[in-house]
Amino acid sequence: MINFEWIYFFDLCGTAVFALSGAIAAGKHRMDPFGVIVLASVTAIGGGSIRDALTGATPVFWISDPNYVIVILATVLACFILVRKPHKLPQLTLPIADAFGLALFTVIGAEKALMMGLSGMSAVIMGLITGVGGGIIRDLLCRQVPMVLRTEIYATASIVGGICYTLSIEVGMDKTSALFFAMFSTLIIRLSAIRWHLSLPAFDLKSKRP
Amino acid sequence: MINFEWIYFFDLCGTAVFALSGAIAAGKHRMDPFGVIVLASVTAIGGGSIRDALTGATPVFWISDPNYVIVILATVLACFILVRKPHKLPQLTLPIADAFGLALFTVIGAEKALMMGLSGMSAVIMGLITGVGGGIIRDLLCRQVPMVLRTEIYATASIVGGICYTLSIEVGMDKTSALFFAMFSTLIIRLSAIRWHLSLPAFDLKSKRP
Amino acid sequence: MINFEWIYFFDLCGTAVFALSGAIAAGKHRMDPFGVIVLASVTAIGGGSIRDALTGATPVFWISDPNYVIVILATVLACFILVRKPHKLPQLTLPIADAFGLALFTVIGAEKALMMGLSGMSAVIMGLITGVGGGIIRDLLCRQVPMVLRTEIYATASIVGGICYTLSIEVGMDKTSALFFAMFSTLIIRLSAIRWHLSLPAFDLKSKRP
Repeated sequence: MINFEWIYFFDLCGTAVFALSGAIAAGKHRMDPFGVIVLASVTAIGGGSIRDALTGATPVFWISDPNYVIVILATVLACFILVRKPHKLPQLTLPIADAFGLALFTVIGAEKALMMGLSGMSAVIMGLITGVGGGIIRDLLCRQVPMVLRTEIYATASIVGGICYTLSIEVGMDKTSALFFAMFSTLIIRLSAIRWHLSLPAFDLKSKRP
Repeated sequence: MINFEWIYFFDLCGTAVFALSGAIAAGKHRMDPFGVIVLASVTAIGGGSIRDALTGATPVFWISDPNYVIVILATVLACFILVRKPHKLPQLTLPIADAFGLALFTVIGAEKALMMGLSGMSAVIMGLITGVGGGIIRDLLCRQVPMVLRTEIYATASIVGGICYTLSIEVGMDKTSALFFAMFSTLIIRLSAIRWHLSLPAFDLKSKRP
Repeated sequence: MINFEWIYFFDLCGTAVFALSGAIAAGKHRMDPFGVIVLASVTAIGGGSIRDALTGATPVFWISDPNYVIVILATVLACFILVRKPHKLPQLTLPIADAFGLALFTVIGAEKALMMGLSGMSAVIMGLITGVGGGIIRDLLCRQVPMVLRTEIYATASIVGGICYTLSIEVGMDKTSALFFAMFSTLIIRLSAIRWHLSLPAFDLKSKRP
């Protein structure tokens, strides 16, 4: 983990955002309260757990630091009390918060890989897994083709962010600047995609061609 | 693992029950015999495998102890021979057996976490993962929204059982009493839910509100 | 890993084949280019990753050896350029290539388990996980009941191949012969199943019986 208290604080914010998106998905499937907790948890800490299991950084991060689970429980509780009418939320609140979570988790995943001495390529992949893994599990459990695999420029933003961070560190930039640069890149790409409905041309083998 | 032979025996019984539920799910999807073995296996040892991978207790438990796989193979074989007409089974046989498996796996998962020196909160989570993880993978492979996330008080029973076990150990109760107390709590909740179709109020964001 | 350069070369070929099958599945779901990369990757290295996470061989194999990821990226790139009309491919190209990948990954998984000193039974299971794990994740992400669980003799071929390899090693056959014997067994079973649409009798609990 990056050695700054405010990064840790941001990390917990990202956890809360992803927990919220899991809880809302659970609400759309009418799950019971503990089902909501389970879905919020896998969304928030699923990606980091896969990263830690693959790299051998076990026990995984949330086992030794209870704050992650506490943040998730608090988020779910707040969600039960407050989020009664999600369609009353300003429409883009959740995607924008989610974009911040994605940007931050990507950088944290890449940084954790670099700290373990893994290669730059592995760091990009670990950033991607940390950023999108939880959302993939959430969508699988709700029986949907994972949003990140076909929505506008989602995995793309994470991969670009991971590359920016890794390259910045390799050319000697300090961690704080690299963090801001990589997060900024991810956010600008993802938010632009949301704002203007951008998407990369799909690889489409389904439609007929003459 | 709890150091009593009969716990080990119960653990193998829980494995058989969960393998049976996996095999029956496979039969409902007309899988071939080795597909049935795969589905029975992930149901029976999937939860414990995730637990061990997350906590770093690798190689996972069934690699070093062949009895688990043997029990699964024997269960599947028995299932091929005997279970030709599952609708002829007394209707509640499987849910009740499953409730026992859930109760036992929850306690074993929590105990294993405590033995590794993890916190009480982590022990509850590990109990939950051990108890419901296999069923979640089974339902995913059969392309269903996991039963444990929306059925009557399933994850709930496991979480309560895990809390009972962890608290009992922390207040100094001996392991055998704690085991019975926690299993009893889980069973009473789950069986009541089955018997009277109890469920917690769903967190429902789908229906319209005036 | 078996200590022969050409095995390593074959392993990379298997990786390319499975990456191709993932990329084609992604194309059928109209994913964006980075979604295609993600799906190709989980198909190609998902099974081996699960194997390594379960046995504790972490960091998993592709983290320390960048060639696997490079092969995947090259395959996806080639796929973008060349595979515009998959229905123009000779119809059995992909299943046959896939059968080779299955045979090779099965043997490599079993060999890796034996090298770690695991039992013969665990070696067979690790061969199976390596051979079919990636395809299962691919199908889950595309929201399909995994092909390997119900298609003609797929898991079966892998299990037989794993047993052949493990038994051959245990009776003292040298690794190269055991490898060819086991791959040959897997291929003959799988290719026969493809050619003559063989399948084992399904375990069918769905249809009514008089």
